[in-house]
Amino acid sequence: MTPSGVPRQWMQRRELALLTDYYELTMVSGYLRHGLAERPAAFEYFFRTLPPHTGFVLSAGLEQFLDYLENLHFTPDDLEYLESLGSFDLPTLDYLANFKPDLEILAFPEGTPAFPHEPVLRVSGPLAHAQLVETFLLNCMNYQSLIATKTARICQAAQGEPVLEFGLRRAQGPDGGLAGSRAAYLGGCVGTSNVLAGRLFNIPVRGTHAHSWVMNFPDERRAFDAFADTFPEGCVLLVDTYDTLRSGVPNAIAAFAARPHIQPAIRIDSGDLAKLSKAAYRQFVQAGMPDVRIVGTNDLDEDLIADLKRQGAKINTWAVGTHLITSKDHPALDGVYKLVAAQTDGRWEPRIKLSGNPEKTTDPGLKRPIRCYDDDQHPLGDILISEEEPVPDSSAVEAIDRQYLHQKRILKNIARTENLLVPVARHGRRLQPSPPLESIRTRARRCLAEFPEEYLRLRNPEIYWLGLSPALAQIKQNLLARVSE
Amino acid sequence: MTPSGVPRQWMQRRELALLTDYYELTMVSGYLRHGLAERPAAFEYFFRTLPPHTGFVLSAGLEQFLDYLENLHFTPDDLEYLESLGSFDLPTLDYLANFKPDLEILAFPEGTPAFPHEPVLRVSGPLAHAQLVETFLLNCMNYQSLIATKTARICQAAQGEPVLEFGLRRAQGPDGGLAGSRAAYLGGCVGTSNVLAGRLFNIPVRGTHAHSWVMNFPDERRAFDAFADTFPEGCVLLVDTYDTLRSGVPNAIAAFAARPHIQPAIRIDSGDLAKLSKAAYRQFVQAGMPDVRIVGTNDLDEDLIADLKRQGAKINTWAVGTHLITSKDHPALDGVYKLVAAQTDGRWEPRIKLSGNPEKTTDPGLKRPIRCYDDDQHPLGDILISEEEPVPDSSAVEAIDRQYLHQKRILKNIARTENLLVPVARHGRRLQPSPPLESIRTRARRCLAEFPEEYLRLRNPEIYWLGLSPALAQIKQNLLARVSE
Repeated sequence: MTPSGVPRQWMQRRELALLTDYYELTMVSGYLRHGLAERPAAFEYFFRTLPPHTGFVLSAGLEQFLDYLENLHFTPDDLEYLESLGSFDLPTLDYLANFKPDLEILAFPEGTPAFPHEPVLRVSGPLAHAQLVETFLLNCMNYQSLIATKTARICQAAQGEPVLEFGLRRAQGPDGGLAGSRAAYLGGCVGTSNVLAGRLFNIPVRGTHAHSWVMNFPDERRAFDAFADTFPEGCVLLVDTYDTLRSGVPNAIAAFAARPHIQPAIRIDSGDLAKLSKAAYRQFVQAGMPDVRIVGTNDLDEDLIADLKRQGAKINTWAVGTHLITSKDHPALDGVYKLVAAQTDGRWEPRIKLSGNPEKTTDPGLKRPIRCYDDDQHPLGDILISEEEPVPDSSAVEAIDRQYLHQKRILKNIARTENLLVPVARHGRRLQPSPPLESIRTRARRCLAEFPEEYLRLRNPEIYWLGLSPALAQIKQNLLARVSE
Repeated sequence: MTPSGVPRQWMQRRELALLTDYYELTMVSGYLRHGLAERPAAFEYFFRTLPPHTGFVLSAGLEQFLDYLENLHFTPDDLEYLESLGSFDLPTLDYLANFKPDLEILAFPEGTPAFPHEPVLRVSGPLAHAQLVETFLLNCMNYQSLIATKTARICQAAQGEPVLEFGLRRAQGPDGGLAGSRAAYLGGCVGTSNVLAGRLFNIPVRGTHAHSWVMNFPDERRAFDAFADTFPEGCVLLVDTYDTLRSGVPNAIAAFAARPHIQPAIRIDSGDLAKLSKAAYRQFVQAGMPDVRIVGTNDLDEDLIADLKRQGAKINTWAVGTHLITSKDHPALDGVYKLVAAQTDGRWEPRIKLSGNPEKTTDPGLKRPIRCYDDDQHPLGDILISEEEPVPDSSAVEAIDRQYLHQKRILKNIARTENLLVPVARHGRRLQPSPPLESIRTRARRCLAEFPEEYLRLRNPEIYWLGLSPALAQIKQNLLARVSE
């Protein structure tokens, strides 16, 4: 175990230095050759667009990035392979052989809602070091943030009823499943079917049985009896192998009636979940078991759950697979990692990247996102200030649109501000042990509860306000004028 | 290295026995308790629906499943964790401690086109063993088959021009990236940006540089000169950091003009790729460099590539990220693993699972998919025969619709048949070394070339014919009658 309580197995199971885009290595080699490798540079991680219909992104994946950082090194096999490619000179191979990332990391605590173009994480240190961690950072944060966000939406649709993550078989590879289970728990699930995720992250594991169980007994009733006798605790009988209402439910009722010490519970995995769950519930009520737990599965997502609930489906536990673990309607968050400043003679100089699309033009300089709250602890908006600026302490601040620099808004009635970027690593090492996943999950839930409901709506949510401080807008304006000359 | 030439690192990097759904373990425990664990059973892996607009699925992921199988065992830590859950009795824990999968596997060779409801893989052996491997098998085959298929479509759109896989940063976790790179190469890509995938699977690695490279030099021209001097081989200059046509392309031309020994190549990553590539190409032609290689990136997929080509874009290398590595418009293949037969007294008995949706009712019994070819080596259709039937050797065979059993079709002019399910493992061990990825890739390309183009169209392709043999249809009919009584 690491000091942080995360099993080493999670990230150290193999050497990950080569899990990177080739161009990171060619750039490092080039920086070395041109005397730029050790020049201090700062990059920011942010995403550009929210997933469709979604008002926020829950930041997640930081702990796995920090694990990676603490263990990052090139093995002799890695170096031999790189040498075999014939593109890297000896100084580069030597440099990589001795490489230990000497980076400072500031980041949103995991489970914090974030918004487009907001720096969720900042990496600063020698240019070659900061460049090398780009790909893994993006891989790690993009996916976990996406799944935590999707899960939060699904849990909102379930209105407090438990949601289970059952996605491993449809996940995009083993780590899709593992990282996805972690993010799903962070985002609000109460358990997972993934046993390894249960072990590594201390997530409750849950499951029922498959159709094959029923098909391996002479009849459904004997299959149910056998399962109930084997697993009286948490026994959930799958009732749709042959005929849900004519066979499955009556057999389940008979099995539970013969075992009054067992909490009745069934799972429905096909057919119309609203109609079947209501009819199944009526049969259980007639049999004197109104406390039956009914688990619904089969291609659920937040929209279908909301619709089933609207129609009075008698499902009270939602197990979600494919749509959750792949974020099926939008399987990639568009997070990027951009150079925002480089040091010359000990002074940070802001950097900008232009684009034909003004939205993609970066916001230059080291920035700090400040969340402004009203008297009731509701966030009013976020403002990006430059590193040198003091955090605003007045009850009203001016914020400039990051794209249309002539537009501004005044945020009023500010009772409190929060500096969202927190130092988490120095010289490539964690500054404090990782928080337990449980407390990250609690933070996510608390943060979302603070947001007014208009930002949490499942369709067409209100757009949260994010602006630049006047000083930062001026820096951007100046740089735009200079590079456009 | 394993005998198969696949580095052990790929699958053995950690213990994967717990990377499974919890219910597989509870069922194993139940089967043990009820004397069913060692009963011979057979399961088939198949998918139900094609990805949208897609006429075939390229089967992939088999080698990783076989690796898993050969190395599958429960560690003392695994067992300690399972014991801590409090649901498993001592006989179960003992059984798992000594578990070694004793399974026979038949499968489509990787890179073979497959169709809905066709058994792509069959697992037979003791019920508990066959049940235990379900989740990993699905995780492995669903994702790789999906990505190999998506890549084949993208390569078709590129009409023979090279396609590179640049998706790691948007992949769903580290193994999303790794398994995805493998599947992408299998499906037709010529290289990957993922260096670890390059090392593990011997895939050519490719890359250019990022905007940050340019932003770290006093100006674009000096950045290009520095990069070209560092990487004269395969030097691709990214021209859109400031202004593609006014700054990037002229600076790239100047850098290449000063270095006539270097093959001119640029990458365009934003803006309108058709317009910009044509204008950039004109500048290169005017500078006497008509052989410039122009790499296009930025949210490409098969539709956009087809459209850009239709508009005469002067891009000749396509680098595809998010859409390929996540199969963005459809990020999960719906592959399932169903019990089809169980042995009683040494005889296989077919098993069926009904569903309110007739399409989801399974095809019972051990089956063999037979591909029928005409004189020109074009596939005419596939027929599923039962294990006991001889492979048809006449030039015309009758095939029954698997859902509407009263509908049949005669496949005519059959010149040759191919038995697609090949034995690949016995007692849980490979029967022969894995083929090199290169030869799987060649097989995929050859198989697709054999299919008439109507099945390969990017929109609304022809539906390939798959039917049951009359004998198999009769087995299904009989079981349907029996369970519906």
